[in-house]
Amino acid sequence: MDNQLECVKEKLQRILSLRAILSLLHWDEEVFMPPKGAESRARQLKVMAELIHEFETDKCLLDELDSALEKREGLSDDEFLMLEEARYDLQRALKVPSKWVGKFTEMRSKAYHSWVEARKNKNFLIFAPYLEELVLLLRERAEYLGYVGSPYNALLEDYERGVTVEKLESIFNELLEKQTSIYKTLLDKQDRYSKFSGKEWSTEKQQELSTNLLTKIGFDFNAGRQDISIHPFTTNLDLFDVRITTRFSKENPFSGIYSSLHECGHALYEQGFKLEDRGTWIAQAPSYGIHEAMSRFWENIVGRSLSFCKYLYGLLTDYFPGEMAEITPEEIYMEVNRIKENFIRVEADECSYNLHIILRFIIERELIEGKISVNSVPDRWNSLFIEIFGLCPPDDTKGCLQDIHWSHGSFGYFPSYALGNIFSAQIAERLKTEIEFNECIEKGDFAPIKDWLKENIFEVGRRFKAVEIVEKVSNKPLSSQPFINYLREKYSDLYKVVL
Amino acid sequence: MDNQLECVKEKLQRILSLRAILSLLHWDEEVFMPPKGAESRARQLKVMAELIHEFETDKCLLDELDSALEKREGLSDDEFLMLEEARYDLQRALKVPSKWVGKFTEMRSKAYHSWVEARKNKNFLIFAPYLEELVLLLRERAEYLGYVGSPYNALLEDYERGVTVEKLESIFNELLEKQTSIYKTLLDKQDRYSKFSGKEWSTEKQQELSTNLLTKIGFDFNAGRQDISIHPFTTNLDLFDVRITTRFSKENPFSGIYSSLHECGHALYEQGFKLEDRGTWIAQAPSYGIHEAMSRFWENIVGRSLSFCKYLYGLLTDYFPGEMAEITPEEIYMEVNRIKENFIRVEADECSYNLHIILRFIIERELIEGKISVNSVPDRWNSLFIEIFGLCPPDDTKGCLQDIHWSHGSFGYFPSYALGNIFSAQIAERLKTEIEFNECIEKGDFAPIKDWLKENIFEVGRRFKAVEIVEKVSNKPLSSQPFINYLREKYSDLYKVVL
Repeated sequence: MDNQLECVKEKLQRILSLRAILSLLHWDEEVFMPPKGAESRARQLKVMAELIHEFETDKCLLDELDSALEKREGLSDDEFLMLEEARYDLQRALKVPSKWVGKFTEMRSKAYHSWVEARKNKNFLIFAPYLEELVLLLRERAEYLGYVGSPYNALLEDYERGVTVEKLESIFNELLEKQTSIYKTLLDKQDRYSKFSGKEWSTEKQQELSTNLLTKIGFDFNAGRQDISIHPFTTNLDLFDVRITTRFSKENPFSGIYSSLHECGHALYEQGFKLEDRGTWIAQAPSYGIHEAMSRFWENIVGRSLSFCKYLYGLLTDYFPGEMAEITPEEIYMEVNRIKENFIRVEADECSYNLHIILRFIIERELIEGKISVNSVPDRWNSLFIEIFGLCPPDDTKGCLQDIHWSHGSFGYFPSYALGNIFSAQIAERLKTEIEFNECIEKGDFAPIKDWLKENIFEVGRRFKAVEIVEKVSNKPLSSQPFINYLREKYSDLYKVVL
Repeated sequence: MDNQLECVKEKLQRILSLRAILSLLHWDEEVFMPPKGAESRARQLKVMAELIHEFETDKCLLDELDSALEKREGLSDDEFLMLEEARYDLQRALKVPSKWVGKFTEMRSKAYHSWVEARKNKNFLIFAPYLEELVLLLRERAEYLGYVGSPYNALLEDYERGVTVEKLESIFNELLEKQTSIYKTLLDKQDRYSKFSGKEWSTEKQQELSTNLLTKIGFDFNAGRQDISIHPFTTNLDLFDVRITTRFSKENPFSGIYSSLHECGHALYEQGFKLEDRGTWIAQAPSYGIHEAMSRFWENIVGRSLSFCKYLYGLLTDYFPGEMAEITPEEIYMEVNRIKENFIRVEADECSYNLHIILRFIIERELIEGKISVNSVPDRWNSLFIEIFGLCPPDDTKGCLQDIHWSHGSFGYFPSYALGNIFSAQIAERLKTEIEFNECIEKGDFAPIKDWLKENIFEVGRRFKAVEIVEKVSNKPLSSQPFINYLREKYSDLYKVVL
């Protein structure tokens, strides 16, 4: 039995090692691969993905897992959980036929290229037939996986286990109403003048500042790295090998700082699992939403606070004494919390970000439920945009063609971004009652915050679902209220208005 | 049949893709991996190596190869060769039981760590028991593989197919006699004064110079990269993704330049295979020796020529105008061709390098043939060193513990270094009759040389064995004479002596 158990664990760990290797291939592609290497890399990625799929859908392994879990004898509670979580994923993988996976992979690649073309030509019709195919395939996927209620629930499960359209709808409706009102009130209060523009901010200095800042926050550079890439992202190869990327802009020092904070939030999670869980199925975040909660926590709740701006003021003045002359901490605070009209999700401020997500949620749900056709997506997008923001995108690259997700067949992913914001506020509400939040930040003493998150979130791993963790930590049911309260408090104070 | 053939090709290409992924894991480990990532990387490497071994020893694939080659129908000549070369490797892999591979891998890892310890403590006895195990395992390997004459022939075959101890002995005996005489004559003629020492050579500038130089020589930076690592090496992930590393010393600008030239020589080979052969078994060098021939060609025959020193003079003066004041091209030539007493192979000059190799060849052959015991290696090393160089290493880190190879179980590899020198001289002898060698170099017009090598060496791939290629190109049998002639001509002129 012991031997059999070791064999099962070995097989599971092999899958995780192969996934890490796949991640390295992706990381290298984005960060260091020479341009002509793309074709062979595509082949390597395909080979690895197929191998992983093969191991993940190994019926033998699933049988062994079943028998180990059934006997339960000799298993510690943690071991039981590890195997149970693994079984959940493998069972799910097995529900979908390999043939479907092959078709989907091929179609994703075609769809991605058509999306690039469509953007170049500002013509949605180039992308439409491929999106159509992807939607059909995803509906098939939902049928294979099974669901209660909307087929969209089956897809949501890939990103936020246990979360349903019904739950999302009630949360999102509240957000939509309250955030729209806050956003519109603030839009009128903007001062367009910025003391930060028109200067050149050396990217070398920004890089030094970033390394310094991340070290202070608690990113372990002996167990990770930071590099440059066009789209910032985080890659985890192991608890002790977590890599983040960022980008720096000469015109705007905050682009690099906030992207670094965001990715660092993801990285602290990955570096923060329990050492004993390393290399097992529970040394993983339970959902995309809670991962995003940690990145948004550091980027926004910490990073866009007045206390942090005071701390950052010191750092910026050290690295950019000339550029920072005659700038106050309060001006940084105002600068990084500007509310503005904007078509693009990734550039959205805290008050409107979720509104962009809700729009996407509505459309992708309608597509998966067969309520609208792919060809009507641009019209649907624009009319929803007018409804929510009072503006019409000038073309589809600033509208329904702006995100890469659909071209990757990632339907059900967007809601995790909004959930991340909601989770982060509900977690922070509790954290602030236990830690001298603002005092710590102002001093640059981030360890108490990081340690609290490690104990309450990171080390839990996959022992609980994301919503359970948030509810446990905050000792109340999941709600959008903490996030709305957070926005109201912060922005009514900042803009001297009643929200 | 066509379908079956495609399937075989697909499987072979998968093996090559997996090998490339393994190479990326190694490359990343040396170049960018954070220090704490070592443990998980070891596991990833193990997982990949086992998978590759599994695919390489797939009897099904071998049967399919056999049947395709037997029918031959529908196969072009190149396809036939690709499959034949693949079959040769797979058959060889299959001769060695998986159990042996597992034991060997484990023992290599232990031996490597004991070697590191032994070096730290300057104590060969720490390494000896592991070396003993490796020698026993390698003798087993020889038995599995089969051989005629010495069991060492079986190991040589891993690096230099078709080359035997008998052949090596006759070549090496001649080298030993003639190189020792040349080396000793020149040793007396050295001027110890150097105009290059005592200055600081900015490593940033060196890096810029290196990029410039490699571009001129023909390294395609869109299909490769150069990074920094402790031990310079070349990694090929694809014809269009070839990565080299180097190191720069503040004290000595030539360390970086010549290590870059050396690795660039390897890289040009890998970037230079026929595009049509890409991703197949014949887009590979036929041996380690011929690969080394290309690196030594660029490092020594090109790089340490007077013409190159004249060209380099211009480059160095551009990047280091202050440091280069009052230095002439001839002084560079003298500096990079110093002959010196030296215990360390990797620091050896052109005249003595092969002598270091011959010493190792003698000892490893004796070990594999069971003629000496592992415990007697230090004594044997030192007495041979006295015999050849007239000096005794002060301790084993400057003697038999200096190289990593034995700790990796790489027996039979060293001769390839000496063969590389011999091949390179014999190839260069012919090349110089077809190309205005010195004129091109002095102008910095390296394209004719690179193109000649591409046509005559690189594009051949594995269509011929290394020795066949050298003999075909030079139109005469393999001999140490061209190399001895090269040394005599160059150094008698440089030092104004009769050699």
